[in-house]
Amino acid sequence: MGLKKVVACIKSNKRFLITTHMNMEGDALGSEIAFYRLLKGLGKQAIIVNSDNVPTEYNFLPGVNEVRKFRNNLKDIKFDCFAILDCSGLRRCGEVSKMYRDNKTLLNIDHHVSNEGFGDINWIDPDSSSCSEMVYKLYKKLCLPLDRDTATLLYVGILTDTCSFHYPNTSSLTHRVASELLKYNLDIAQIYKNVYENIPFKDMQLLIKILPTMKRQFGGKIVWFQIKQDLLKRHKGVSFDLTEHVLNFARAIKDVEVAVLFKENLGRVRVNLRSQGKINVNRIARFFGGGGHKTASGATVYGKIEDVVRMVLNKIKQSFK
Amino acid sequence: MGLKKVVACIKSNKRFLITTHMNMEGDALGSEIAFYRLLKGLGKQAIIVNSDNVPTEYNFLPGVNEVRKFRNNLKDIKFDCFAILDCSGLRRCGEVSKMYRDNKTLLNIDHHVSNEGFGDINWIDPDSSSCSEMVYKLYKKLCLPLDRDTATLLYVGILTDTCSFHYPNTSSLTHRVASELLKYNLDIAQIYKNVYENIPFKDMQLLIKILPTMKRQFGGKIVWFQIKQDLLKRHKGVSFDLTEHVLNFARAIKDVEVAVLFKENLGRVRVNLRSQGKINVNRIARFFGGGGHKTASGATVYGKIEDVVRMVLNKIKQSFK
Repeated sequence: MGLKKVVACIKSNKRFLITTHMNMEGDALGSEIAFYRLLKGLGKQAIIVNSDNVPTEYNFLPGVNEVRKFRNNLKDIKFDCFAILDCSGLRRCGEVSKMYRDNKTLLNIDHHVSNEGFGDINWIDPDSSSCSEMVYKLYKKLCLPLDRDTATLLYVGILTDTCSFHYPNTSSLTHRVASELLKYNLDIAQIYKNVYENIPFKDMQLLIKILPTMKRQFGGKIVWFQIKQDLLKRHKGVSFDLTEHVLNFARAIKDVEVAVLFKENLGRVRVNLRSQGKINVNRIARFFGGGGHKTASGATVYGKIEDVVRMVLNKIKQSFK
Repeated sequence: MGLKKVVACIKSNKRFLITTHMNMEGDALGSEIAFYRLLKGLGKQAIIVNSDNVPTEYNFLPGVNEVRKFRNNLKDIKFDCFAILDCSGLRRCGEVSKMYRDNKTLLNIDHHVSNEGFGDINWIDPDSSSCSEMVYKLYKKLCLPLDRDTATLLYVGILTDTCSFHYPNTSSLTHRVASELLKYNLDIAQIYKNVYENIPFKDMQLLIKILPTMKRQFGGKIVWFQIKQDLLKRHKGVSFDLTEHVLNFARAIKDVEVAVLFKENLGRVRVNLRSQGKINVNRIARFFGGGGHKTASGATVYGKIEDVVRMVLNKIKQSFK
């Protein structure tokens, strides 16, 4: 079993370089910082290097100052083990992959079913809600004590990857782990606010301008929105995931099977698709040269927005047959 | 302790009338139907009578057909024990309170801190997230087995009263109970969809028309919306809690302390207030003749909407001093 091999790997190495996937979110950060603290607790040397900056909403995380952004002068750092958490492929960790050397142990800890098993040591557990749930198991296996900071990190990872315990990856065990973590007196209301209720007013105004473009087709099974180029030009520096917020809005509507956002940009249209499960939107995105998952995919299509809307909606309608 | 007395009460009575508060939601329904099933499992006679109809989003609940709406001809039903769940006062159960007789045992099971202890037997546990969490404890105490239907009922009660495990009433024990309930193979994604992602398209269109009225004051600490009378006239039969949805939208904005919705209606204005915790909006609502909780309150104010907006916003600003 992967967990035992991970324990052996930790024991036999001294210096660890820890990283995660590009565009990191709560689980990536929570699991890698908690893993860093675990190694430090065992007297190991460890450093966290990510390809991107930490998103501002995660600046409240304990130990976030230990997370460094990749720079070329970090390339000479000495390590024995290159540990990647919450990342389905080596390339997905971005520029940091340049720091990897063939003669170092590659440790791969992940919960994505699509993980390619690219490590020398692989612990891949798709039954775990999150990589943070896996790091929790590692703490238990090593009989290492948790504290409030580590519990906060692991809780944030679980919270964000399950979308507050409602995605189907939430298991009985997920709740049991959350139950253990809440014993450390976590301020769960404040954590939730930091992660989810932190949108700048001006970004909310932008969202409010996009929502009225909502239209439906195919008896309400398809709901779609569009963002014209000039609107985004007027709103500079959007600091939140606009696409996610628009499409989440559509999720709440009765009978919707597929939600789509069309975003116009210099002769191209970014198409983001979400499915409630019945329609495989990955197939639709692939038809237009994109990709993703069964329930969340995207593609960039060249053409006028009116034409792209018509083509994509037609393709979705065909998928219902 | 209240739990022991409840067990004694159940054992010493044969015929139970079960009810809950007016405008029932997930926890009221989940806990009363689960309690009904518990009594039936013990071979008791039981009937559920509520003052209102079951909200449509809860029609999926197992055993919901056992829930009757109060009618005058139900008044003659024979019972030994009048059991009220999730209800802080006898009057709050509405017309059903007419069925209560002084010579019957009044059983009061509730988790609201404001519960008046109005029963002959009172089990009030404000540390419980929900009344459903309390009924779970009752099943354990009586060593009664759960099944998938009962687990679904209790899960829905906990889910809705904690708003998917993120309100501060969510405890370590709450997650432990959820962990036990998920062992019964619950379809938590479908449950979430039934409860939260079931808004008719036309109601969403109404919401989209209200959001652009969003304004802020006091450096963004106050965010407010208004609904003019003619807008609601054009949208008949709104089937979802519009106020809740508008104010939840405001919750997600950074730095907001108080969110307000002003709803114009025939020379009056309904004012709904939400606080993130620092400001006691109950005090503000009481100043205008209304009331509620520290974080959620409302009042009806006579006057032109422009005047009411000005007065209420001024009062809120004063509260920050």
